Amino acid sequence: MTGNSTVPTPPTQPGLAQTEILHCQADATLQAKSDWLAREEPLEIRVHGRSVAVTMRTPGHDEELAAGFLLTEGLIRQRNEIIEMAYCQQGEAARHPNILNVFLAPSVHVDFEKLTRHVFASSSCGLCGKASIESVHQHFAPIESSLTFRVETLLRLPDSLRAAQTTFEQTGGLHGAAIFNGDGELLVAREDVGRHNAVDKVIGYGFLQGLFPYTEHLLLVSGRASFEIMQKALAARISIVAAVSAPSSLAVDFARESGQTLVGFLRGKSMNIYSRHERVIG
Amino acid sequence: MTGNSTVPTPPTQPGLAQTEILHCQADATLQAKSDWLAREEPLEIRVHGRSVAVTMRTPGHDEELAAGFLLTEGLIRQRNEIIEMAYCQQGEAARHPNILNVFLAPSVHVDFEKLTRHVFASSSCGLCGKASIESVHQHFAPIESSLTFRVETLLRLPDSLRAAQTTFEQTGGLHGAAIFNGDGELLVAREDVGRHNAVDKVIGYGFLQGLFPYTEHLLLVSGRASFEIMQKALAARISIVAAVSAPSSLAVDFARESGQTLVGFLRGKSMNIYSRHERVIG
Repeated sequence: MTGNSTVPTPPTQPGLAQTEILHCQADATLQAKSDWLAREEPLEIRVHGRSVAVTMRTPGHDEELAAGFLLTEGLIRQRNEIIEMAYCQQGEAARHPNILNVFLAPSVHVDFEKLTRHVFASSSCGLCGKASIESVHQHFAPIESSLTFRVETLLRLPDSLRAAQTTFEQTGGLHGAAIFNGDGELLVAREDVGRHNAVDKVIGYGFLQGLFPYTEHLLLVSGRASFEIMQKALAARISIVAAVSAPSSLAVDFARESGQTLVGFLRGKSMNIYSRHERVIG
Repeated sequence: MTGNSTVPTPPTQPGLAQTEILHCQADATLQAKSDWLAREEPLEIRVHGRSVAVTMRTPGHDEELAAGFLLTEGLIRQRNEIIEMAYCQQGEAARHPNILNVFLAPSVHVDFEKLTRHVFASSSCGLCGKASIESVHQHFAPIESSLTFRVETLLRLPDSLRAAQTTFEQTGGLHGAAIFNGDGELLVAREDVGRHNAVDKVIGYGFLQGLFPYTEHLLLVSGRASFEIMQKALAARISIVAAVSAPSSLAVDFARESGQTLVGFLRGKSMNIYSRHERVIG
């Protein structure tokens, strides 16, 4: 979880993924170790074979997720309106763990027009984290960059972001995102109830101001790093992403495939480096 | 922000909303006060007049948000591909602050089929928080419930949820949601990289197990309370929602319109009550 953990224990939940990281101290010493990540994978929910939602979720209890989604969307009200839920059969292969088919009672009226949301990259039975990454790379090539950041500079960034989060100070209710240049100077910080929105805003700022692309810059987020945040950073050509909290498994996979440096748990006097550590220098 | 703040300072950001709350101590004493909330409102992004996204965001820097969204979705690459951005004109009225029209250069190919996501309740120029609430109420009526929770019971809940968050302990990267009965006993807890997913899972659990509706239960979330979380709770007929962290302005508005009790900053020895405080008893 953090740099304070030592030897990982075996996973007992499907929501865990193991990875190799470098724990970095303030004096730039690096220590290799194994760590656990929260797993992030897409789940496509289909009703009568038609895609109605794709959500990035932690595997496990997928039938509950689908039932809860359909219920809270107002599509179903009674338990017996769900006839069956089954993972997609991939040709003659085994069940596909990321596509769940829901079969509803004939009496249920399905307004597909209203229901279809969060649907993107709705592929055939090829939906998985790897396919999601490849889909993004069709639009945004991986990054080659010789940009570096000093450890001491990185460790200062969370305080700078926090100081710029004026609304958070008053409400405790906002995500923050910021762009820094290589000297650790804050270019722009934005807050939003949605963390993806905060990232869109700092990227949109640079785009509209003609400061684009962000090839010499770093993106810092106040919370966790997800697949979608790494994807947005890649679109802006950002080679270094830092998060105050944990990354997901798919964020780490994405960073490694995209040539991005991903730093997590950037707080206090240390950080974890999940990919392309050579951009972090002593 | 929390119960420790005293007199609010005037807002200097458009992202703030003022509200009246009750601060509740462990001995059940209540203190009325003003507080600031992070504002949450829908933003609909239109391209050439067609809706491509509705996102719940904090107002301010909307043009950056739209530009960042279109860029990171791969629709635009160059600054000059955006000809103009303008808020929707509502008849002959003033600009509508929650619908932003983007006009792109003729050379930009817009794949609406691929782009259309997060689009729901895509109304005419009537999009606002109030319209969002009314839209939900067309499907799910407000709640009348005489359920009560004791203060001492409420204060114990975050520890119970934390103890059930086994994956969070190992990764630091998951949102938690849990359902409790009136005695404060944990019925189910789920973790997910997406907080809405965690809520869908605990609701789906009860639905599939025949424990539905949750009329005698409380929903606790490990983080913040948003509009969408309150909406999901209403769909499950949950009358009391508690959050370890802050609610948004629209979550509070929604709770008040829906007859739900909303508790925030439930941590340590106190909490804030934003609506229907009579369900919290000493």
